[in-house]
Amino acid sequence: MKNPILVPELRDLLNKKKYKIIKSFLDENHEKEIAEYLGLLSPNEIWKILELVEIYRRTTIFSFLDMDVQVAMVSGDQRKNIAELLIQMSHDDRADLFQHLEKEIADKLLLLLPTKERADVIKLSSYKESTAGAIMTTDYAVLNEEDTAEKSLKSIRKVAPSKETIYYMYVTDSQSKLVGFVSLRRLILARPKQKIKDIMKTEMIFAHVDDDQEQAVRQIEEYDLIALPIIDDNNRLSGIITHDDAIDVIRQEEAEDFEKLMAISGGVEEKPYLEIPTYVHFKKRVFWVIILGIMGIFTGFIIQSFQGILDKLIILSFYMPLLNSAGGNTGSQSASVVIRSLALNELYPKDFFKVIRKEFVISAMLCISLGLITYFRVVFFSGDISPEFNINTIATLIASALCIQVIWSTVFGAMIPIIVTKLKLDPAVISSPLLSTCVDMGGITIYFTVAKLVLGF
Amino acid sequence: MKNPILVPELRDLLNKKKYKIIKSFLDENHEKEIAEYLGLLSPNEIWKILELVEIYRRTTIFSFLDMDVQVAMVSGDQRKNIAELLIQMSHDDRADLFQHLEKEIADKLLLLLPTKERADVIKLSSYKESTAGAIMTTDYAVLNEEDTAEKSLKSIRKVAPSKETIYYMYVTDSQSKLVGFVSLRRLILARPKQKIKDIMKTEMIFAHVDDDQEQAVRQIEEYDLIALPIIDDNNRLSGIITHDDAIDVIRQEEAEDFEKLMAISGGVEEKPYLEIPTYVHFKKRVFWVIILGIMGIFTGFIIQSFQGILDKLIILSFYMPLLNSAGGNTGSQSASVVIRSLALNELYPKDFFKVIRKEFVISAMLCISLGLITYFRVVFFSGDISPEFNINTIATLIASALCIQVIWSTVFGAMIPIIVTKLKLDPAVISSPLLSTCVDMGGITIYFTVAKLVLGF
Repeated sequence: MKNPILVPELRDLLNKKKYKIIKSFLDENHEKEIAEYLGLLSPNEIWKILELVEIYRRTTIFSFLDMDVQVAMVSGDQRKNIAELLIQMSHDDRADLFQHLEKEIADKLLLLLPTKERADVIKLSSYKESTAGAIMTTDYAVLNEEDTAEKSLKSIRKVAPSKETIYYMYVTDSQSKLVGFVSLRRLILARPKQKIKDIMKTEMIFAHVDDDQEQAVRQIEEYDLIALPIIDDNNRLSGIITHDDAIDVIRQEEAEDFEKLMAISGGVEEKPYLEIPTYVHFKKRVFWVIILGIMGIFTGFIIQSFQGILDKLIILSFYMPLLNSAGGNTGSQSASVVIRSLALNELYPKDFFKVIRKEFVISAMLCISLGLITYFRVVFFSGDISPEFNINTIATLIASALCIQVIWSTVFGAMIPIIVTKLKLDPAVISSPLLSTCVDMGGITIYFTVAKLVLGF
Repeated sequence: MKNPILVPELRDLLNKKKYKIIKSFLDENHEKEIAEYLGLLSPNEIWKILELVEIYRRTTIFSFLDMDVQVAMVSGDQRKNIAELLIQMSHDDRADLFQHLEKEIADKLLLLLPTKERADVIKLSSYKESTAGAIMTTDYAVLNEEDTAEKSLKSIRKVAPSKETIYYMYVTDSQSKLVGFVSLRRLILARPKQKIKDIMKTEMIFAHVDDDQEQAVRQIEEYDLIALPIIDDNNRLSGIITHDDAIDVIRQEEAEDFEKLMAISGGVEEKPYLEIPTYVHFKKRVFWVIILGIMGIFTGFIIQSFQGILDKLIILSFYMPLLNSAGGNTGSQSASVVIRSLALNELYPKDFFKVIRKEFVISAMLCISLGLITYFRVVFFSGDISPEFNINTIATLIASALCIQVIWSTVFGAMIPIIVTKLKLDPAVISSPLLSTCVDMGGITIYFTVAKLVLGF
């Protein structure tokens, strides 16, 4: 069903004023696809094409354009249809656009808006980032509880085109307090004369404007909602978050957790990889590379302090990478399992000792398998060592140190996220490399201390 | 608005047959919350309480119960309302339940279903896991393109309670081929006498039953859909995937990627952490711990082969952990950025050389900062070293080896996911520990080779 028209052709058609063909292209494609084609044209060309479609569809196409294209389009010469488009836009998308504009341009455009719309943009822009208020939209549909289903359906028909969703409608009292909601399914199933208050659901699921966006979205997810109402300090309905915005938040939080976990700082960029300047990539990575580098240098000091043993028994240095990687791997595994369980509310800080006990047993099982392999490797492939040492003793010492390292790393990896959560911090701040470096320091100390004890230095 | 009733009280009320109070509890709470309370009672008790609510709500509550509770409830003594409940269930939830039942019980329950429902369960269970077919539901609403809006609205009213969603309705031709769709919003906005074919949208977004579930869900996300139609090999409409199932898939894929990244194998478990048996936790972690352990042993062999240098210059061993962690960290950073960009279709294998060039510059910037710190650390804090070596030479050698390691690791970390994608594999198979271990092996070789060259052994 795809129209094979391409961007240069579109430009050509525009120059030759072949509007009929452009119109048929616009008719045959989804708004998102049209936006993908248009995004490659100049702002002026996009405006010309958008003028060919009616306002509702024009606004939808506009909203699907990338943010930088939207900004370029409203930042240029003022066009008479900018106001119309801004009034028609979904309220959350509009507030988002204004937050991406230069102050001067934003102020100029605000003046084009009617008072009510202007206040709406200012209100929606006032909420702190990552709160439910910052992602909600104010173009929801409201019903009167005294109205009949028939009357409500008529009034919904009138406002439908300008609302983000009409599949959930909200019922408020005279103080704008949220008292219930009605789904469109329920409304069309109701008898015409039934009153809204008799068909509305009152066991409301809602969030507060200052709630964390992730917490709000979690409700949409758990209750399978199309939209979640958001209330303010006075329990007044302030806005709604819709299912599609919920998915965007989930993706964004996922990307953030992923970057934090890999020791990349500074939040997720909006642009694609190749468009992000090299120094921005550098800036996002350098912080942790330096911190972890300095910690690595400290690990070096620990080794240096055991130089005496190393001088006598160089073989110990062959197993340092194994020790470090085994510690890092098992620690990252337990940490990631625990972080996820905490995030999903499957686990709470009160379960601390249960988790430790469980991880202890798991790590004991892991270290037996790994310890045996290591023991045999040491005994059979070590070549000549100084005759003052017995190879079996050394193999036992290395395998035991490895076992202690695996157990300590696994338990440490599981403990830290619980402690961090208990301190009311986000467990995702502990990146996997940070954890590995911490267990390395402990591991090296364990390793040489065991060596010292066993060999009696 | 929450009712403070608790589980023991609920059980007590049930024993005392105080059904009125239980009913008011059921009336005042959301189906999901009721399911949370009921989940703690015995199957028999749950059945008794469910009998107090009408069938649609009963089914919703039942579907919110945990899968093992659902299984226990239908596996016990046959109850006369099981069939009614199974017929009423959302088709995808029902197919899911059947797949969790023991074969014997599933066969017995299938016999309770009317032929059409039985065929539906068998059909939905036949799709391969992780495909669009496996997560779709078949209880969608269909319209006839020759009908008027008025007639369609009437017919939708009749079927509404048994459909997963009526907010999107699909239009098929006489061969069941998908020809268009109408949103409920559009339907109630249409003039009563308008025909469906005149109001339906024909630029359809759809997926195929055999498509990967993630690919299908990506469409719901990109086009902000409430539901996505799924077609079979003959372009016939087979089912739909709804927005709430899309969120579940996103969460599941996220969890899987997260576990793979942390070297945990075998897929995500359905149960919470503490309920998963210890040996299952062990099983999911041991594979990679052993593989990576064996690789760590090989790294040991590489060090062993350079024993001559180490014997003379033990100081080199102090910097091995720094070298390994710097390599692991920078490699994980670049790999994770590239994996994400590939997943989001922001980057394609054809960009290979652009990525390499960019990562080369980023890593050069990273290694300058890290190299300088290391140089000064070596020069100022090394204590006495053998007089045959110059400390500046050694510092330069260690810092240079570190720089080469950082550059190689960063570029390698970026290359591997692109190559894996080019080979049509999932780039998430490269876990962060696997990557670290690979760059470790290279890093140690680089380190000692540089030392050999500089010191002229």
